[in-house]
Amino acid sequence: MKRIFNFSAGPAILPEAVLKEAAEEMLDYQNTGMSVMEVSHRSQIFKKIIEDAESDLRTLLNIPNNYKVLFLQGGATNQFSMIPINLMKHKKADYIVTGNWAKKAFKEASKFGEVKQIASSEDLNFSYIPDLKNLEISPDADYVHICENNTIFGTKYHDLPDTKGKVLVSDVSSCILSEPMDISKYGLIYAGAQKNIGPAGTVIVIIREDLITKDHLSNTPIMLRYDIQAENKSMYNTPPTYGIYLCGKVFKWLLNLGGLEVMKQMNIDKANVLYDYLDQSKLFYGSVDKASRSLMNVTFKSTSSELDDLFIKEAKAIGLDSLKGYRTVGGMRASIYNAMPIEGVKALVAFMSDFEKEHLK
Amino acid sequence: MKRIFNFSAGPAILPEAVLKEAAEEMLDYQNTGMSVMEVSHRSQIFKKIIEDAESDLRTLLNIPNNYKVLFLQGGATNQFSMIPINLMKHKKADYIVTGNWAKKAFKEASKFGEVKQIASSEDLNFSYIPDLKNLEISPDADYVHICENNTIFGTKYHDLPDTKGKVLVSDVSSCILSEPMDISKYGLIYAGAQKNIGPAGTVIVIIREDLITKDHLSNTPIMLRYDIQAENKSMYNTPPTYGIYLCGKVFKWLLNLGGLEVMKQMNIDKANVLYDYLDQSKLFYGSVDKASRSLMNVTFKSTSSELDDLFIKEAKAIGLDSLKGYRTVGGMRASIYNAMPIEGVKALVAFMSDFEKEHLK
Repeated sequence: MKRIFNFSAGPAILPEAVLKEAAEEMLDYQNTGMSVMEVSHRSQIFKKIIEDAESDLRTLLNIPNNYKVLFLQGGATNQFSMIPINLMKHKKADYIVTGNWAKKAFKEASKFGEVKQIASSEDLNFSYIPDLKNLEISPDADYVHICENNTIFGTKYHDLPDTKGKVLVSDVSSCILSEPMDISKYGLIYAGAQKNIGPAGTVIVIIREDLITKDHLSNTPIMLRYDIQAENKSMYNTPPTYGIYLCGKVFKWLLNLGGLEVMKQMNIDKANVLYDYLDQSKLFYGSVDKASRSLMNVTFKSTSSELDDLFIKEAKAIGLDSLKGYRTVGGMRASIYNAMPIEGVKALVAFMSDFEKEHLK
Repeated sequence: MKRIFNFSAGPAILPEAVLKEAAEEMLDYQNTGMSVMEVSHRSQIFKKIIEDAESDLRTLLNIPNNYKVLFLQGGATNQFSMIPINLMKHKKADYIVTGNWAKKAFKEASKFGEVKQIASSEDLNFSYIPDLKNLEISPDADYVHICENNTIFGTKYHDLPDTKGKVLVSDVSSCILSEPMDISKYGLIYAGAQKNIGPAGTVIVIIREDLITKDHLSNTPIMLRYDIQAENKSMYNTPPTYGIYLCGKVFKWLLNLGGLEVMKQMNIDKANVLYDYLDQSKLFYGSVDKASRSLMNVTFKSTSSELDDLFIKEAKAIGLDSLKGYRTVGGMRASIYNAMPIEGVKALVAFMSDFEKEHLK
């Protein structure tokens, strides 16, 4: 068996130790004689799996007691609808648009109320995080929405916006668990699992209890109500049991590493290997504003799109996979999530260095 | 490694051969050096997985070309909302209520239009399928909804209702792929994967193309639109990739067995082992009307609830798991889906026979 270095933006690399355990337990989970996939979600076996997952996530993120943790379906995209449906009491919200996902969230929310784009970095193709100091927050906004790490562009908020007391809602799909965060600063965060946690098909929502309303429009689909999902501990219907089991394994893997402070340092060390190389390279350069750089998604280009294509092709051939940038950005993107070992980043930089020597005139 | 016989109603037993393959491929799918979980849904690797899954399902069910196959999230419960949202042009629909799920579907649909319960078996705790001959179909109903196999009660429609030309919509979660079916008789069928297909987190929808509308209320959540899901071939956002991969493996397993005619005969043989025993037993008896019996979920009771409890406990101790009936029915339920080998049913009947000898006065 040969494993490659997979730089995919999502679904993405998972810890090898987690996959090994999952393979070993596939036909017989802890001497139950069943796969976790085969176990009823109402069984004691699964109850322990989901409760442990929640408890470990609470430990990792130091989640205050007045927040609910939900394991839902439909990805972050479904949250683009659920958030306005559940949180827009006054039918108003403010959105900061820093990339495709933030824009999609904004567009979807406009179906449910009056939404305002209070800042954007679209003028420079989302290559920076806008100034967050004097935002024109709507006085009656129910919340302010951000996408905290922009997977496609490779930017991240390094400070949170001043929402002037309004509830902050954040899509943290591509940065959750990459470093500690102060949950109490948010009303709601959400993350599709398939970037920095587990397999696709599970989305994690952490929501402050007072934001969970029972007051909905009469035609609100039952699955889109946070109150129903919270009352039923994410089991109003059958949850994505195997995905939750794998998320739980990743949480234990993180705890065993030492938690998010340790993970953060590992992520900084990894990202620095790549950014430091980029900053001195004569062939490659980073695609975004330095102050807005992401630790998770590193976007870069060479001096021509032809060289970019050649680089991506040759990298793939030696087991450095999925480095092609998103089509509206071009160039390369290396997603170096928690599960990417530093060896992968070093192998990438070594190849970049060789490529540079060969192609720099 | 010891495997037990798992009679859970869902999530449920999966073919051991499928689980073995999944375990072997967990860290390296077909020499890609990646787990299927780690592969981008936009990659050629996953494209082939989802296309093969669809193609094999089309072969198994002989799906006509004017039907779309969708792999979605949110389970059958999400379909309870999506169906009225997308299919109720005239805001009217008829529902036949034969169990808890049919009732939940009916209740959810009432949020979106005027729905009528045109038949029910609730008078006898859903222990039979009502007479389907002279239904009072509403002249302007957009569709007639049924739940074809009632997991909790152990009943199944052996004929389809005469809908007087109206579109038939059927929840086939617990009977899909158990025998051949004529898709052309339906406008839409749907099935949560976690009963007779694969792991929880994927729901399969097969919909006639002319029923897919682009005309929606302005506040329809994007993920709940069949047109969006169909145009994007189930990939408007990241689909539950690993679940789809496993569903695809189960489809191949069924094709290798010889397809649904062969599977049907195996299911009849299995169910007969249990029903024949029940029909001559002096201690146990079937819970439902004989003419309405399900091939997939067999409900039965002994002469007292104390004996039922003892039976369930002792059966579990010898590896016959999850036989407890649903709380509103009591007694026992043996779910004997496609993946349950006949040896499992024989082991169950052998134990029932021993138990009968011991406890019959």
